[in-house]
Amino acid sequence: MPYSYETDGASIYRESFAIIRREADLARFTAEEEPVAVRMIHSAGMVELAPHILFSPDFATSARAALSDGAPILCDARMVAQGITPARLPADNPIICTLHDAPVRDMAREMGTTRSAAALELWRPYLAGAVVAIGNAPTALFHLLTMLEDPTCPRPAAILGCPVGFVGAAESKEALWHAAPVPCAIVRGRLGGSAITVGALNALASRSET
Amino acid sequence: MPYSYETDGASIYRESFAIIRREADLARFTAEEEPVAVRMIHSAGMVELAPHILFSPDFATSARAALSDGAPILCDARMVAQGITPARLPADNPIICTLHDAPVRDMAREMGTTRSAAALELWRPYLAGAVVAIGNAPTALFHLLTMLEDPTCPRPAAILGCPVGFVGAAESKEALWHAAPVPCAIVRGRLGGSAITVGALNALASRSET
Repeated sequence: MPYSYETDGASIYRESFAIIRREADLARFTAEEEPVAVRMIHSAGMVELAPHILFSPDFATSARAALSDGAPILCDARMVAQGITPARLPADNPIICTLHDAPVRDMAREMGTTRSAAALELWRPYLAGAVVAIGNAPTALFHLLTMLEDPTCPRPAAILGCPVGFVGAAESKEALWHAAPVPCAIVRGRLGGSAITVGALNALASRSET
Repeated sequence: MPYSYETDGASIYRESFAIIRREADLARFTAEEEPVAVRMIHSAGMVELAPHILFSPDFATSARAALSDGAPILCDARMVAQGITPARLPADNPIICTLHDAPVRDMAREMGTTRSAAALELWRPYLAGAVVAIGNAPTALFHLLTMLEDPTCPRPAAILGCPVGFVGAAESKEALWHAAPVPCAIVRGRLGGSAITVGALNALASRSET
């Protein structure tokens, strides 16, 4: 039996985004935010994601400006780092994930926390003006918030907080939303994850939708 | 403000899986399938995923046996390949993703299809007895089904079909489920993606839940 299916990548993207814009309630997003929300929904395969997406008023503009200026993208998980499409980045931005760096295992033991949280200590040299993308570990997001309570800690330009799951994910995102140390975005509740995070990043990196 | 959160990775896993087993309806899964479904739900952050997960009767046993025998894992996307935890694999199994191999762009142009589909032609030397993990592209899954219509094409041991999205994803998974050329599993409908695929693979690779 021959299978009949769309084989043109650009057409698949266009049709997907048209379906999302037809089915999802996107009215509350600004023109800056809407394409980011659309791509997050696309990555999740769920128009039902829309009401869970929250942007602080300056998140999309801050993140886009930082990326245009060459800001590094700091990722908590290798799946996030791998999913970002380098060709979409406006300034050949460095994509950094320190989770698997050699010292992290020992650091986590000494700090009494997860490797995901300990790995963020290695972000300090890159943190000023960076775009942070946390798509996996609630402990990473909680640790970042703790780091930023120290006024001498460098400030990122924007934080995308999308850890996923059943323990700490919802709580860590509420903590980010309420502390809001810099412009931020979250997916409220349990939903989130590397694919949604990558979708947002790829939308912030370029306005191309194919 | 100090943040209070669980920082022990093993405890986070245990608590997460306990929540899933409390909230999700898992009664229809066998003892072989249940931990795979639990980890897929864990990756998605959605107990509502449970009714969409379908396993052919021999999928979990076939995939586990193949992995124990050293089968390679063939992934359609780098996010899938990167998410699999090497330490969980029973036989140091090779993890193969050909999407970014040099010839793929030209192959896709010549074949008139997506790079995701064309990349599968490079799987042929590894396909016999492999575990296939398609977590992104419907066109890859459709192309695999077309390849397997040729009786001389080597047979994988098991196919995990979890492409995500709005165009072709649901259709490609229904096509796999109905053709069922080998033991297979799908997430029915639009839901799917690299994280869910990785969750299933990591559960098949090892029974450890921490």
